[in-house]
Amino acid sequence: IDDYCLEAADSCKEADLVILASPVGSFKKLLYSMRDTLKQNSLVTDVGSVKGRLVSEMEALIPEGVRFIGSHPIAGSDSSGIAHARADLFEGARCIVTPTSRSDENAQRKIMSLWESFGARVEIMDPMLHDEIYAAVSHLPHLLAYALVNTVDDSNPEYLQYAGSGFKDTTRIALSSPELWRDITLMNRENLVALIDRLESNLDLMASLIKNADAEGIEREFSRAQSLRNKLK
Amino acid sequence: IDDYCLEAADSCKEADLVILASPVGSFKKLLYSMRDTLKQNSLVTDVGSVKGRLVSEMEALIPEGVRFIGSHPIAGSDSSGIAHARADLFEGARCIVTPTSRSDENAQRKIMSLWESFGARVEIMDPMLHDEIYAAVSHLPHLLAYALVNTVDDSNPEYLQYAGSGFKDTTRIALSSPELWRDITLMNRENLVALIDRLESNLDLMASLIKNADAEGIEREFSRAQSLRNKLK
Repeated sequence: IDDYCLEAADSCKEADLVILASPVGSFKKLLYSMRDTLKQNSLVTDVGSVKGRLVSEMEALIPEGVRFIGSHPIAGSDSSGIAHARADLFEGARCIVTPTSRSDENAQRKIMSLWESFGARVEIMDPMLHDEIYAAVSHLPHLLAYALVNTVDDSNPEYLQYAGSGFKDTTRIALSSPELWRDITLMNRENLVALIDRLESNLDLMASLIKNADAEGIEREFSRAQSLRNKLK
Repeated sequence: IDDYCLEAADSCKEADLVILASPVGSFKKLLYSMRDTLKQNSLVTDVGSVKGRLVSEMEALIPEGVRFIGSHPIAGSDSSGIAHARADLFEGARCIVTPTSRSDENAQRKIMSLWESFGARVEIMDPMLHDEIYAAVSHLPHLLAYALVNTVDDSNPEYLQYAGSGFKDTTRIALSSPELWRDITLMNRENLVALIDRLESNLDLMASLIKNADAEGIEREFSRAQSLRNKLK
């Protein structure tokens, strides 16, 4: 057992509330280490970017008399570490809370109030639906940003110096922690693999329109994207 | 012949310098319309995002006694139209100037001075190399941003409301003019098709690492991207 697990097991002894905020791949190990020291009637939540199967696994591990409710505050950036801490990080941010049929209603209310007290807009969602949605709007974009930078690396890394603001914005999230995103990617595997496939279909379509110099088709695909993206402005 | 061509033919009569700044697909038509009215010893340049074959085509069309030198100032945003004009747009921006063996040295010096007078950092580059580089750092990212938004559209357009700042940044350039990018895409076709292929290889690699739950491999690919992207910070 790693040092941080021993520390966690020790420091949760007196806690009424435990918030897991390490890479999602460490949650099971952490909870396992804390099993015997968690206080009766205490509450455990997390800030992980995946829920789905992870929530079931956490529920299976949580000891009798302790309650787990999953959370995912949509806040933060590509930066990691205490130097980037912000007191107002959750102010106005969306926070998804993912109770299940096994969840205690009182515990759920407490977790919702916690996030609301930080200024977040709380939304209840099924853990599996959460993972389907965030695969599309967050996990795939991260994977894509990494893949795009690697494509430039494969072509000629020196080309990077010619990048303008478009490239910088498109790949900003490729600055994110590889360890963190490795865990997220692995825990939302099925959704992500299906979406990579769907993305490649769109890329194949564009490649074939370009090869055939189908100006109308290209403009139609670009316009479809532009009008949906406009709704986010 | 379109109205804007007639207007261009008329308004270039007295001009010592003509700057083409419409979608690149219209340049040939415009230059063709201006052929008989361009002043002797006048200079033509452009602000198009593709050079390569376009420059050869412009050189072939330019009338005797008039000189063409291609330019590509790396500035601007996803916005279009006069409402987004900025007096300091080129201040500190890079500007690629692409003379060829057919270019007049005096004309080249004048075009370089023009951009320098706007505050741009001018760099001379071969037109074909320009298109190879900008396919990687600009044209592919645009195509990818459009493809990513379309992938969300194919999954469920309602999911878009859950997007955070990562998705917004990654797809900002999908707000760009479809007409403008249709033309750029078509004029840099060969480079772009080859790069889509290379990007798909990277996506295939990631999909297979994810399917095989190869945590080390995933982290290695993400870290490769992160460290190259860090150089741009």
